[in-house]
Amino acid sequence: MTDYIAPLQTLIEQFRRLPGVGSKTAVRFALSVLKFTEEEAARFADAVIGAKRDIHSCRICHNISAGEVCPICSDPDRDAETICVVEDAQDVMAFERVRNYRGLYHVLGGLLNPRKQISAEELHIEELLDRVEAGGVKEVILATNPTFEGDTTALYLAKLLSKYEGVKVTRLAYGIPVGGDLEYADEITLDRALQGRNTIR
Amino acid sequence: MTDYIAPLQTLIEQFRRLPGVGSKTAVRFALSVLKFTEEEAARFADAVIGAKRDIHSCRICHNISAGEVCPICSDPDRDAETICVVEDAQDVMAFERVRNYRGLYHVLGGLLNPRKQISAEELHIEELLDRVEAGGVKEVILATNPTFEGDTTALYLAKLLSKYEGVKVTRLAYGIPVGGDLEYADEITLDRALQGRNTIR
Repeated sequence: MTDYIAPLQTLIEQFRRLPGVGSKTAVRFALSVLKFTEEEAARFADAVIGAKRDIHSCRICHNISAGEVCPICSDPDRDAETICVVEDAQDVMAFERVRNYRGLYHVLGGLLNPRKQISAEELHIEELLDRVEAGGVKEVILATNPTFEGDTTALYLAKLLSKYEGVKVTRLAYGIPVGGDLEYADEITLDRALQGRNTIR
Repeated sequence: MTDYIAPLQTLIEQFRRLPGVGSKTAVRFALSVLKFTEEEAARFADAVIGAKRDIHSCRICHNISAGEVCPICSDPDRDAETICVVEDAQDVMAFERVRNYRGLYHVLGGLLNPRKQISAEELHIEELLDRVEAGGVKEVILATNPTFEGDTTALYLAKLLSKYEGVKVTRLAYGIPVGGDLEYADEITLDRALQGRNTIR
């Protein structure tokens, strides 16, 4: 480990906090900041502070939002009978890019994970139940990732939601990605695709 | 392109300024900042401002330094007769990790590059000539990368330095990396290795 002068070391450590950034990348980022003008560095720092200060969590769905309620939740044209439950704001963005989904969202803010000690209380699960309890919801789509944590969280939510009889609880379809090649699909995906097979005639 | 709320968009744009960061990574970084506490975000921002404020360029070698003169230039145990010329501060770190080099450095702050309009005036070339002119230097090692720009810059410097008769001008050896496999070496590297071959008996 090379010794860096203190202010550089501090900056490297901050960059290492970003997801997927190892020490080499952090050094590269830190050195690139040194090439900024003072004004550019101030702009960068302001963007960090500003984002944290001005972006909140939507009071209803917990998606990121500039206002108290996000544009999706306040859009009267969205189908309020359907709630798509996702792990985080990035998943909302992914669905919004598809442009086919017109329902609302509910951002959990994570997944159940005993290893990382993320329990149900730390996720926005209570708030989801409150929304369903309030009525008007006909379907809850559990759209967590098809990972161990995502599946566990979906199962847990499905169980909690089972008491609301009029509410359909669904899970996203998992299988071979469109354009994918069977030959290269991993066994678990292939198994999912097989189990989820549809009748075409 | 997804539309992001303004403060998020601003932060994404700032992260995109970092080397090798595309839009997807920038979004991931920006969203991870939203998970920081206010205090953590402030610490991150301070690190950026602080690095820019407290890190300067060494008056002698132009390496990054907390003081006016860097620890290497002010170390009386270093061999002041040898100057290793590199592109940037990262190259100095790479040499320092080897721990075998005891001479001084000179950081050019870039390479000659007509495409990016980087000309000799923008690099610390004049300052290098001043150091050699001042006397006491016996060897200048041109340690720019073996790329088109690196080679061009080295050739240019070699020409400028040729007027100092007592000063040996050398270039790093380029060839097959230690532990490398001839079979997988690209043609240019192999050609360099061949041209730079040494007599062993």
